[in-house]
Amino acid sequence: MTYSIAILGASGYTGAELIRLIADHPAMKITALGAFSKAGQTVTDVFPHLRHLDLPPLLQISEIDFANIDLCFCALPHKTSQEVIASLPRDLKIVDLSADFRLRDPADYKKWYGNDHAAVALQKEAVYGLTEFYRDQIASARLVAGTGCNAATGQFVLRPLISARCIDFDDIILDMKCAVSGAGRSLKENLLHAELSEGYHAYAVGGTHRHLGEFDQEFTALAGRPVHVQFTPHLIPANRGILATAYVKGDAVSVHETLQAAYAEEPFIHVLPMGQTPSTRHIRGSNFCHIGVVGDRTPGRVILVGALDNLTKGSSGQALQNANLMLSIKETEGLMMAPLFP
Amino acid sequence: MTYSIAILGASGYTGAELIRLIADHPAMKITALGAFSKAGQTVTDVFPHLRHLDLPPLLQISEIDFANIDLCFCALPHKTSQEVIASLPRDLKIVDLSADFRLRDPADYKKWYGNDHAAVALQKEAVYGLTEFYRDQIASARLVAGTGCNAATGQFVLRPLISARCIDFDDIILDMKCAVSGAGRSLKENLLHAELSEGYHAYAVGGTHRHLGEFDQEFTALAGRPVHVQFTPHLIPANRGILATAYVKGDAVSVHETLQAAYAEEPFIHVLPMGQTPSTRHIRGSNFCHIGVVGDRTPGRVILVGALDNLTKGSSGQALQNANLMLSIKETEGLMMAPLFP
Amino acid sequence: MTYSIAILGASGYTGAELIRLIADHPAMKITALGAFSKAGQTVTDVFPHLRHLDLPPLLQISEIDFANIDLCFCALPHKTSQEVIASLPRDLKIVDLSADFRLRDPADYKKWYGNDHAAVALQKEAVYGLTEFYRDQIASARLVAGTGCNAATGQFVLRPLISARCIDFDDIILDMKCAVSGAGRSLKENLLHAELSEGYHAYAVGGTHRHLGEFDQEFTALAGRPVHVQFTPHLIPANRGILATAYVKGDAVSVHETLQAAYAEEPFIHVLPMGQTPSTRHIRGSNFCHIGVVGDRTPGRVILVGALDNLTKGSSGQALQNANLMLSIKETEGLMMAPLFP
Amino acid sequence: MTYSIAILGASGYTGAELIRLIADHPAMKITALGAFSKAGQTVTDVFPHLRHLDLPPLLQISEIDFANIDLCFCALPHKTSQEVIASLPRDLKIVDLSADFRLRDPADYKKWYGNDHAAVALQKEAVYGLTEFYRDQIASARLVAGTGCNAATGQFVLRPLISARCIDFDDIILDMKCAVSGAGRSLKENLLHAELSEGYHAYAVGGTHRHLGEFDQEFTALAGRPVHVQFTPHLIPANRGILATAYVKGDAVSVHETLQAAYAEEPFIHVLPMGQTPSTRHIRGSNFCHIGVVGDRTPGRVILVGALDNLTKGSSGQALQNANLMLSIKETEGLMMAPLFP
Repeated sequence: MTYSIAILGASGYTGAELIRLIADHPAMKITALGAFSKAGQTVTDVFPHLRHLDLPPLLQISEIDFANIDLCFCALPHKTSQEVIASLPRDLKIVDLSADFRLRDPADYKKWYGNDHAAVALQKEAVYGLTEFYRDQIASARLVAGTGCNAATGQFVLRPLISARCIDFDDIILDMKCAVSGAGRSLKENLLHAELSEGYHAYAVGGTHRHLGEFDQEFTALAGRPVHVQFTPHLIPANRGILATAYVKGDAVSVHETLQAAYAEEPFIHVLPMGQTPSTRHIRGSNFCHIGVVGDRTPGRVILVGALDNLTKGSSGQALQNANLMLSIKETEGLMMAPLFP
Repeated sequence: MTYSIAILGASGYTGAELIRLIADHPAMKITALGAFSKAGQTVTDVFPHLRHLDLPPLLQISEIDFANIDLCFCALPHKTSQEVIASLPRDLKIVDLSADFRLRDPADYKKWYGNDHAAVALQKEAVYGLTEFYRDQIASARLVAGTGCNAATGQFVLRPLISARCIDFDDIILDMKCAVSGAGRSLKENLLHAELSEGYHAYAVGGTHRHLGEFDQEFTALAGRPVHVQFTPHLIPANRGILATAYVKGDAVSVHETLQAAYAEEPFIHVLPMGQTPSTRHIRGSNFCHIGVVGDRTPGRVILVGALDNLTKGSSGQALQNANLMLSIKETEGLMMAPLFP
Repeated sequence: MTYSIAILGASGYTGAELIRLIADHPAMKITALGAFSKAGQTVTDVFPHLRHLDLPPLLQISEIDFANIDLCFCALPHKTSQEVIASLPRDLKIVDLSADFRLRDPADYKKWYGNDHAAVALQKEAVYGLTEFYRDQIASARLVAGTGCNAATGQFVLRPLISARCIDFDDIILDMKCAVSGAGRSLKENLLHAELSEGYHAYAVGGTHRHLGEFDQEFTALAGRPVHVQFTPHLIPANRGILATAYVKGDAVSVHETLQAAYAEEPFIHVLPMGQTPSTRHIRGSNFCHIGVVGDRTPGRVILVGALDNLTKGSSGQALQNANLMLSIKETEGLMMAPLFP
Repeated sequence: MTYSIAILGASGYTGAELIRLIADHPAMKITALGAFSKAGQTVTDVFPHLRHLDLPPLLQISEIDFANIDLCFCALPHKTSQEVIASLPRDLKIVDLSADFRLRDPADYKKWYGNDHAAVALQKEAVYGLTEFYRDQIASARLVAGTGCNAATGQFVLRPLISARCIDFDDIILDMKCAVSGAGRSLKENLLHAELSEGYHAYAVGGTHRHLGEFDQEFTALAGRPVHVQFTPHLIPANRGILATAYVKGDAVSVHETLQAAYAEEPFIHVLPMGQTPSTRHIRGSNFCHIGVVGDRTPGRVILVGALDNLTKGSSGQALQNANLMLSIKETEGLMMAPLFP
């Protein structure tokens, strides 16, 4: 069986990544593409690298007939997404890649995003899309909220440790190194090649990055008590990848064993042998996440390093993995391609 | 049916690219991997990005049993390849990615490579592996010689024009911009990141690059008279891609129509609409080649620009395309993945 | 003696480069800085890398008192520059870095820039700023028009050969590889890091780049007959540098000797030994231009390669060199810093 | 007065950086250059970007006459440096850029470097070269030991805080992001452009990096009790720069005030306004160090970010600053050039 797929927001990077992945998917066919300012153009106009594909034109979302769509991916900007999704048919399966439905509590949403949520009922309905930890709920969900790419990386590294209570909850530091495509295709001076290449810097320092809302929500729920990690992202002159270096207090061997046990059956999460750490270059363009554990010279301190591709496992690959579950397709279908190296 | 595949030289970039492509191939299974200095290691040791695959260990070539191998890729260094292939079973299907069997005339080989050929009989047997132009011979060949990556790019741009005699044979300039992976995984000072990034330069200037041997052989054969193009490669701070800018004399419309006609049915070669030119970023990681044509302000002058990925369409993708033909598999199998952008 | 300097357009890359160079200049002091949208900010706000300098604030140009200014650099956008300069005091020495005064003939200007010139009288007064070839006129000029960065590179390679009539005037090809800072600090999608890095492409193919107006004007004047070169620029993923590969017909030894003789006394132009070619990495951040000559395997064909930094020798360094002449300062003052490598 | 300068190890990156800086220095002249495998070549052969300079040839160290040398920089590999320096005239002023004389205690040296020190007497004589904190000793020293580049960065961020006892000594994390030139011009597979660009990773995780020996020595001495920080370096695809993100426990305002007071008179160390953080792109090619302070959302936690250029302030610039002191030249002479941006 082939499912009919729509992608809204097809002219951004996560939209392009969805097209790349779904183009090779044996059980899905893209039948509608929606965009805003670039509606009326072809995908080839907007993304010449997809020239070889036979794809529908970019339409205004209002022009799309959703009657025969089995599942719709929304790769729209924050705030826009909640408005568009509120207007879609109530029985349409949706995987949202925006931040709009990640936080379950409207007060949390307002705290981190600054505005009241425009679709509170949908917010309650949405299932948090971190596949490996919400698999059953996702399989039966109508609306799945893709996670933040940093939020996914940090949770892959830390969730099993918090669940197992094998680290100190009050002293968790996440130092992340993020590639530039995570900022999207937006025209900002600091994203120009001449500004960004050859240099790097921290941003959103001090606990202001919105993905902290997800960390707080998830880690606190897991721990049964407030857990507020420190999180500092850094912008790195590379296009794809997130590297999360986590500094925790606990026993390195327990930490490593806990992660190995948690991910033993997971097709996409690889825990490296004790003492080895990953590189973003080894997961680029793939849906894999590599995690390494090293004990510090100071006993009781552990360093963890996690790596994934922000556009794949961190957003569009995760979205497809969730869509596979929602459509009862094999979870790994269309997602086992090897990373591109060099 | 699943064919059993060996790859010799699995620890280099073209070897890794073959593994990446074949890992997703529905009719091939890698059953043997050969290496030299890295024999004894696992693929994960040498290429951590292939960690998720279940692959045989790297063996010395002498340790490999070729009895059950259906086809063997040789991704070995020049000179080594001819010696190894001469020692392999005479009925083994082989796709060679080295330069050793590209030139049919032993004198030409010696002229460009400086030594006598060690396997002249095999040299005569080998079929030149530019798939789109040697399809029938490749399908029935035992030994196919993969082309140089620059040689492939230049020929895709120029062959139909030479065959159609619609350009001046005596005034052809190929100015190429080549990414660094074309130089392989060799430890040379000028390939270090600190040396190469942020700068670029011409090399092998004046007609000394070995791929000229292929241009001369092929273009002269097509034209029925000597054709000696000018060819200057430039090393660009990027990892994958070749961009060939060709300056020819002829009529732009005829040139464009000739190319469109030549490649109308080709799945991997896309001729862009008149006046558009390609970018390496739009073919990266794929088996596609994009070609554009623009008429110069000076009448009778035409600029062509061709782009492909040196590791894919320029070597390992081409090799797999040829292997598909040799094994009577659909030619495009395992090769239709979209480029990785951004 | 210390001269008082103003820079208009201080918030762009050429403005920043002027500040970098003049900050170390023993005979100049920056006393006024003008900007448009960023007026009201400090230089540190706009360019944190200049934080250590004690500089005046960015003002609207109308707020600047030019009474005590000895020389004014205009690093403003095209079209804006002619309007602003027309409004400046008539006796103020000006070095303009825009394209507005490069073409002497108003018809040429309109042909290449599409609009009538708003300051035709000034256009006639302006001296073309290619220092090595207009030294005397520049020394006595009031208004000097900085050249295009590609135009400078191509002329350094070709002018002596055209003057010496040692190459065929009808068959000159300039294939240029240009770093991204040449496009300025403008917010365009194709200049984003995620779009540009890892890929490269030709642009303005076929003879449409505006710097051809300068080539035509200068080469035709030198030759005493029309000379219309072919010129194709390519955008390369690096921040600084232009590499010009020129394909000409002539005798390689004569070409090399002609260049060596022409530049023997020039402090910034280095002709490499016969057969060697330059790299942009070896002139980055400096005011030097390196030129190499190689004979092709086809007799009578010559390849030349020139390299300079588009922001230094291609614009702001050239501008300072001209300003030194106009103020009777030693021509090399403030410009002999070594390139930054790696 | 002009001092006569020798540089040993002139063919590496720190050697080239010394030449770049000293070439513009009004009170120094390079009169001897020493190398090993590249002895016999010219500087232009080894570093074409220095082609414009009139420099002595590269000699074997044994060929150099030190009689008229006022000061010698040793930019030699570790271990080699101690042997060479032991053989130099006892009254020659020396600035060593290797690791050989950084650790005062022979046992510490053996612990971190694995071998017994070959010049223990010199080890005792050497002054630690962190200029801002050892200014008086350096001014009167004969042998100064340049610091590690990471060690310099971490100390600029932390020393005043440890001296002021305003942070918790037992919970200090240094997460560093290091550009590739810090690894030198060595031929290693992981330093190739094709391997390194587009990816990044942690290395020496868990407290094994040798610069920890310097942190332990210096911080313990300052605190008067053992202080053992956690330090994890990461290799970033850029050529120059170190960004140190420090996670400490203390009061953000006190931390900021302490740093501001400590560096108020320092020409090269700039403490940014509270809440701002630096970027490596804004110090590239310069001798400046920028430091920022941000309070975390969790009270009592502070994030500091320091940035410097590993080849300049982290090694060769620091070395020249020390040499200026040793020769009674103005400390900032030759070092006030602005960073190169973009």
